[in-house]
Amino acid sequence: MTSLPETPLLDKVKLPTDLRELDDRDLPQLAREVRDEMIDAVSKTGGHLGAGLGVVELTIAIHKVFNTPHDRLIFDVGHQCYPHKILTGRRDRIRTLRQEGGLSGFTRRAESEYDPFGAAHSSTSISAGLGMAVAADLSHTERNVIAVIGDGAMSAGMAYEALNNAGALDARLIVILNDNDMSIAPPTGAMSAYLARLASGRTYMGFRDFGKKLTAYLGKSIDRAITRAVEHARGYVTGGTMFEEMGFYHIGPIDGHSFDHLLPVLRNVRDNGKGPVLIHVVTQKGKGYAPAEAAADKYHGVNRFDVITGTQAKAKPNAPSYTAVFGETLVQEAALDEKIVGITAAMPSGTGIDKLQEAFPHRTFDVGIAEQHAVTFAAGLAAEGYKPFCAIYSTFLQRAYDQVVHDVAIQRLPVRFPIDRAGLVGADGPTHAGSFDTGFLAALPGFVVMAAADEAELKHMVRTAAAYDEGPISFRYPRGEGVGVQLPERGSILEIGKGRIVKEGTKIALLSFGTRLADCLLAAEDLDAAGLPTTVADARFAKPLDHDLVRRLAREHAVLVTVEEGAVGGFGGQVLHFLSGEGLLDHGLKIRSLVLPDIWMEQGKPEAMYAKAGLDSRGIVETVFRALGQKGFGVNAAG
Amino acid sequence: MTSLPETPLLDKVKLPTDLRELDDRDLPQLAREVRDEMIDAVSKTGGHLGAGLGVVELTIAIHKVFNTPHDRLIFDVGHQCYPHKILTGRRDRIRTLRQEGGLSGFTRRAESEYDPFGAAHSSTSISAGLGMAVAADLSHTERNVIAVIGDGAMSAGMAYEALNNAGALDARLIVILNDNDMSIAPPTGAMSAYLARLASGRTYMGFRDFGKKLTAYLGKSIDRAITRAVEHARGYVTGGTMFEEMGFYHIGPIDGHSFDHLLPVLRNVRDNGKGPVLIHVVTQKGKGYAPAEAAADKYHGVNRFDVITGTQAKAKPNAPSYTAVFGETLVQEAALDEKIVGITAAMPSGTGIDKLQEAFPHRTFDVGIAEQHAVTFAAGLAAEGYKPFCAIYSTFLQRAYDQVVHDVAIQRLPVRFPIDRAGLVGADGPTHAGSFDTGFLAALPGFVVMAAADEAELKHMVRTAAAYDEGPISFRYPRGEGVGVQLPERGSILEIGKGRIVKEGTKIALLSFGTRLADCLLAAEDLDAAGLPTTVADARFAKPLDHDLVRRLAREHAVLVTVEEGAVGGFGGQVLHFLSGEGLLDHGLKIRSLVLPDIWMEQGKPEAMYAKAGLDSRGIVETVFRALGQKGFGVNAAG
Repeated sequence: MTSLPETPLLDKVKLPTDLRELDDRDLPQLAREVRDEMIDAVSKTGGHLGAGLGVVELTIAIHKVFNTPHDRLIFDVGHQCYPHKILTGRRDRIRTLRQEGGLSGFTRRAESEYDPFGAAHSSTSISAGLGMAVAADLSHTERNVIAVIGDGAMSAGMAYEALNNAGALDARLIVILNDNDMSIAPPTGAMSAYLARLASGRTYMGFRDFGKKLTAYLGKSIDRAITRAVEHARGYVTGGTMFEEMGFYHIGPIDGHSFDHLLPVLRNVRDNGKGPVLIHVVTQKGKGYAPAEAAADKYHGVNRFDVITGTQAKAKPNAPSYTAVFGETLVQEAALDEKIVGITAAMPSGTGIDKLQEAFPHRTFDVGIAEQHAVTFAAGLAAEGYKPFCAIYSTFLQRAYDQVVHDVAIQRLPVRFPIDRAGLVGADGPTHAGSFDTGFLAALPGFVVMAAADEAELKHMVRTAAAYDEGPISFRYPRGEGVGVQLPERGSILEIGKGRIVKEGTKIALLSFGTRLADCLLAAEDLDAAGLPTTVADARFAKPLDHDLVRRLAREHAVLVTVEEGAVGGFGGQVLHFLSGEGLLDHGLKIRSLVLPDIWMEQGKPEAMYAKAGLDSRGIVETVFRALGQKGFGVNAAG
Repeated sequence: MTSLPETPLLDKVKLPTDLRELDDRDLPQLAREVRDEMIDAVSKTGGHLGAGLGVVELTIAIHKVFNTPHDRLIFDVGHQCYPHKILTGRRDRIRTLRQEGGLSGFTRRAESEYDPFGAAHSSTSISAGLGMAVAADLSHTERNVIAVIGDGAMSAGMAYEALNNAGALDARLIVILNDNDMSIAPPTGAMSAYLARLASGRTYMGFRDFGKKLTAYLGKSIDRAITRAVEHARGYVTGGTMFEEMGFYHIGPIDGHSFDHLLPVLRNVRDNGKGPVLIHVVTQKGKGYAPAEAAADKYHGVNRFDVITGTQAKAKPNAPSYTAVFGETLVQEAALDEKIVGITAAMPSGTGIDKLQEAFPHRTFDVGIAEQHAVTFAAGLAAEGYKPFCAIYSTFLQRAYDQVVHDVAIQRLPVRFPIDRAGLVGADGPTHAGSFDTGFLAALPGFVVMAAADEAELKHMVRTAAAYDEGPISFRYPRGEGVGVQLPERGSILEIGKGRIVKEGTKIALLSFGTRLADCLLAAEDLDAAGLPTTVADARFAKPLDHDLVRRLAREHAVLVTVEEGAVGGFGGQVLHFLSGEGLLDHGLKIRSLVLPDIWMEQGKPEAMYAKAGLDSRGIVETVFRALGQKGFGVNAAG
C-alpha cells in the first residue's frame, strides 16, 4: 500500500460549487491533484484509466463554467467519468470503483444527481442530451445540456442520427467532441480520417475568418479572453465542415488540456450561443501519466498496477480465456479455408479477432463502433459465398438485432456469430451483462443457437460454424477463463441439434446450456450422495433443440432442471415450450428452469453473482430439493 | 377490368439482356411502357406505387449499362423494385404482387437471381453492397456493385455507418442516392436539408471545375457523351461535399428522369472509376402518373385504384383501426396532460402520431428513420419528467433494442412504447411481421408489457401508460381494424399486472394475450357445446404477470392454453416459467402454449395466415382436443 497522494486543493473541493469558487489560475494545480488521485485509485481498483486521464482539464473546465447539476452534463460511454466522480461528491468512495457495493465504473443516474443520464454503451449521449434540451425548451427552463462524446463513438450510426435530428431542431445542445484519435483500438473509418484532417490543421480557417464567423454566431460580446484563446489555439474551423452542414455551429479544434483555451470558449458558448453547437476538443488519452502515454492502448482498461512503474498486476490464469481460444481457433480454421473472414465492431482485442487480423489482415474487417453495419456487411459477404465470423459481445449484439433478423435470418444467410461476454461479466455490471441473446436469437426461425460448455466445446463450435452453410449460426461463451480442459488439436464438427449426456443417472436430470455445466456436475455429486442419482446433459443447442434428448430426460426422470446463464425465454423457454407442446408435462414431471434472476444484477465478483443468481451448484441442488418437497442443505448445512 | 396497356417494346424485353440490345433512343419509350404496365398492375393489386414510378428511367439505365445479375444491384427498402421486377423475368407474375403465393412487394433473394440482397426495412443496402464489393475484391472478381438508396433512408445511422466504413476501404462500390425529397412522409433532419441545398444548385460547381475533378477521377477518357450530359445536367458537385469528406467520389446531382444524363454518367463510372463513388440522382416520386404526382404522399402505398381517375378502392371499415384509436386517444390524453409528448421515426401517419402533430405540433417529434435515436431521445425527455410516447412498429423496434435495454430499461425511465403492427401484417410479409417484441421486452427486468385485446382495451392502455411513471411500459396492438366494440368516452387506468376473466368455465382455460381474445371466445363456444365448459381470460400483461390469475387458471382447470400472436419465448414463455417455478406443472396440468409457428410466414390474407398459424378459433379448439387425447372437429368435420 503506497501512501495517498497529497491533494491540498482537491481536499477543499467536495462539489462543483467549491470548484467554482477557485480562481482560474488554480485549475492547473487542481488538475494535477485530480490526476494523482485518479491514478492512485485506479492503481488499487483497476478499471478504465486512459480515457479519464484525457479529460481531467475538460471535466474541470465544464464544472467551472457550467452550473451542474442544473446544467446537464452527459458523458458518452461513461468510462471517462472518474475525474467527474472525484469532483462531484464521490471522492470518498473512489477506491470502491467497480467493486461489489461500490461506485459504478460508468455514469449512473441512481448514483448521483450529477449523472443525469447513465451510460456504458457508446454513442448515446447526443440523443439523450437532445431529449433533455428539448425538455428544457418545452418547460421554458434556462438550462445548458452538454454531451461529451469521443471521436470513436462518432462512428456509430446512432450519433449521426442524433446529429441529424439536432441539426434540424433549434434546441440548445452543446456537443463536445473529445477527439483523442483513440477509442479502445485505433479508430477506423472515414469520419476518423476526417477528424484527423481537421485536427491536423489542413482545413483550419484563418483567424480573421474565424473572428467574423464567431461574431456572427456569438454576437458582439467577444472579449479579450477569447481573443487570447484564439491566438493560442491550434486553430479554429467554423465553416464548411460536416458538422456545419449538419446544422451545428462548429468551434475548434482547441487544445483540451489548456484552460486558456477551454474556459473562454466554454464561457462564450454558455453566455451567447443559440441552437446546437459542436466544440471540437483535442485531447491525449492517458495524458499526464507516463506509462499510459507510452502504451499502445493508453491504459484503456487496466488491472491493479504499481503507480511508479506502471506495471499491472496479472492474475495467474488457470486456463486460457475463452476469447483467446476463440481467436486462435478461428486463425486455425481460417488457415484451412480461405472463405473464412472476420468482422469486429471496434473490438479487435476484446473479441480475439486481433489474432485473425495479424494472420490474415486482408480477411479481417474492423468496421468501427457500428454493429448494425457489421452484421449486414457480414450478410453481404455471406451472400457471395464467404464465411463471415461476425464477433460481437452479447450486449452489443442488441445494437444489431434488426439486422440479424432482417438481413441475416429471414434470408437464411450463413453468418457466424461468435458471442463473447455471454452471461454475467463481473465488474462492468448490468450494462455489459450478456443476458438476452439466447432468447432473442432462438426466437428466429432457422437460426442455429449454440453455447459452449467449456473451451474444448468452443473449439468444436468454431469448426462447426465454419462448416455449417445452411443459415445463420451463433455460439455463446462467457467472459474470462476456461475451465482448464484438455484442448483438442482441432475442433470436431458437431451434429447440428444434438446434445450429449455427460453423466448418467436415473432420478434427476440436469440439462445445461453453456458453461454452467461444471456446476451441474458438482451439483450431481451432491445429489448422488443424497441418494438421488443424477443425469447431467449438455444441450449444446438451444435451437434446433435436441428433441430426442429432451424427451428422454423428461420421460426417464422425476425432476428435470434446465440451467443457463441467460434471461427467461431463452433455452429453458425452448425446452418448456417443446415439452408442453408434446404433452410431456401432462403427467407430473417436475420441471424447473433456472435462469438469470429478473433484476439488473449489480457489479460484483462472478462467483458471488452466480450464487446470488442461484446458478451455482448449491443453487441447483436446492432447486432439486425444493422440487421434491425436501429441505436442501441450504437450510440445515453449511453447503 | 380494363384492357391491358399496349407495350410493344416491353413485350420484347424478357430479361435485361434483351434490354441491352435496344438502342439508347428506344429507352424513353420503354420507360413509358414500363410505367403503364406498372400502373396497371398496381391498380389491380395495390402496393407501393410512387417510389417505383420515380425510378423507372434509373432502373432501365442501370440494367442497360451494367451486366446484371453478374453485377449486383441492390435496392434499398425494395419497395421501388416493381419496374425492376417487370424487367427481370417476373412480368408474367407482376399482377400477383403482395398476394398469397405471388411476388413479394420487396426484393427477395429466393425470388430471382436479379435480387442479390433482399430488403424491406430501410438503409441496409450500402452495408450489404460493401460486403459484396469486398467479396468481389477478395475473390479477384471483376464486378460492379450498385446500391440504390433514397434520401429518406440516409437519415438512418446504419447508412452512415456503412458510408463511414466504405469511405475508408478501397472497394468498388457504387451508391446511387435517389433523391426524391420524400420517403414516406416528407423527410426531416439536417441531412435532408443538406441534400436539398445540393439539389437546389446552391453548391453546384462550375463546369470547368467539374471537368477538372472528373478528369482526375475518371482518367482522360471523358468522351463527348459525358460532355453533353454535363451541359444538360442541372449541375455537378464533386468537391467538398459531405460525401467527399467521407471518402466517396461524389457525382451529381443529375436528372434521374433523363437518359441523356444517366447513361453517360453510369457508363463512365462503370468503365473508369475506382473506389467508392456516390451518384446523386434527383427524381420525382410518382413521376409520370398525374394522380400520384398531385397527391401529397405521391401514392406511396395504395389500395387498388382506377387508372383513369386515380380513385382508390376503399374497403368499408367495420370498426376504426387500432392506429386511429391510438392516435385519437393520445391526443385526448395529451390535451389533459401537458407532459405528454409524441415521437415517431418517420412514420407519422402509419403510427397515428400525425394526429398529435396536428393538435400539438411542438410536442411531437419526427426524428427521421432513426429508431435508435428515437428511443434514447425519448429517454432523455423521460429523464426530465416528460411522458414520451415513442411509437414504433414492432418490427422496427428491433432496430432500437439496445437503446430500449441500455438507455430506458436499465435506468427504469418511464418511456411509453405504443407498438403497432404487432403480429401478422398480411401483404407486407415476414419482414414486417411483429413477432418478437413480447419476448425481447418481457425479458427485461422492470418492464411493463401489455397487449390490447380490442380497441377499447387500447384506450385503457394509452391512459394507463400515461399514468404509469415508475419505469418503461409498452402496449402492442395489431395492424388493421378493431373488433367493433363500444369505445369508452375515456380510457380507464388499469391495475398494473392484473388480467381479467372474460368468461367463466370449469374444465378448460384459455388465456389470451392480445387480440386473439375474440378467437378464444369463439373457441369457447365450441368447447362449451362439446361439453367442455371453458374459462376465457385476457391477461392484459405479459409482465408483470398476473400470478393470482394464472395460478387460479392452473389449479381449477384440466387444460390451460395460452394464446398470443408472437414467437416462442414471449407471453407463453412467461406463463410456463412461472408455473414451472411454482410447481404448478408438477401435478399433471395439461398446458399448451400457442404462438406463431417457427417459420417466416409468407404474405397472405390475415385470416388465412391465422388459420395456418393455428391461432384461429379452430386451431385453439383442436389444441384443446388434442391435449385431451380426443379428435377435434378438424378431423371429422368441416369446422
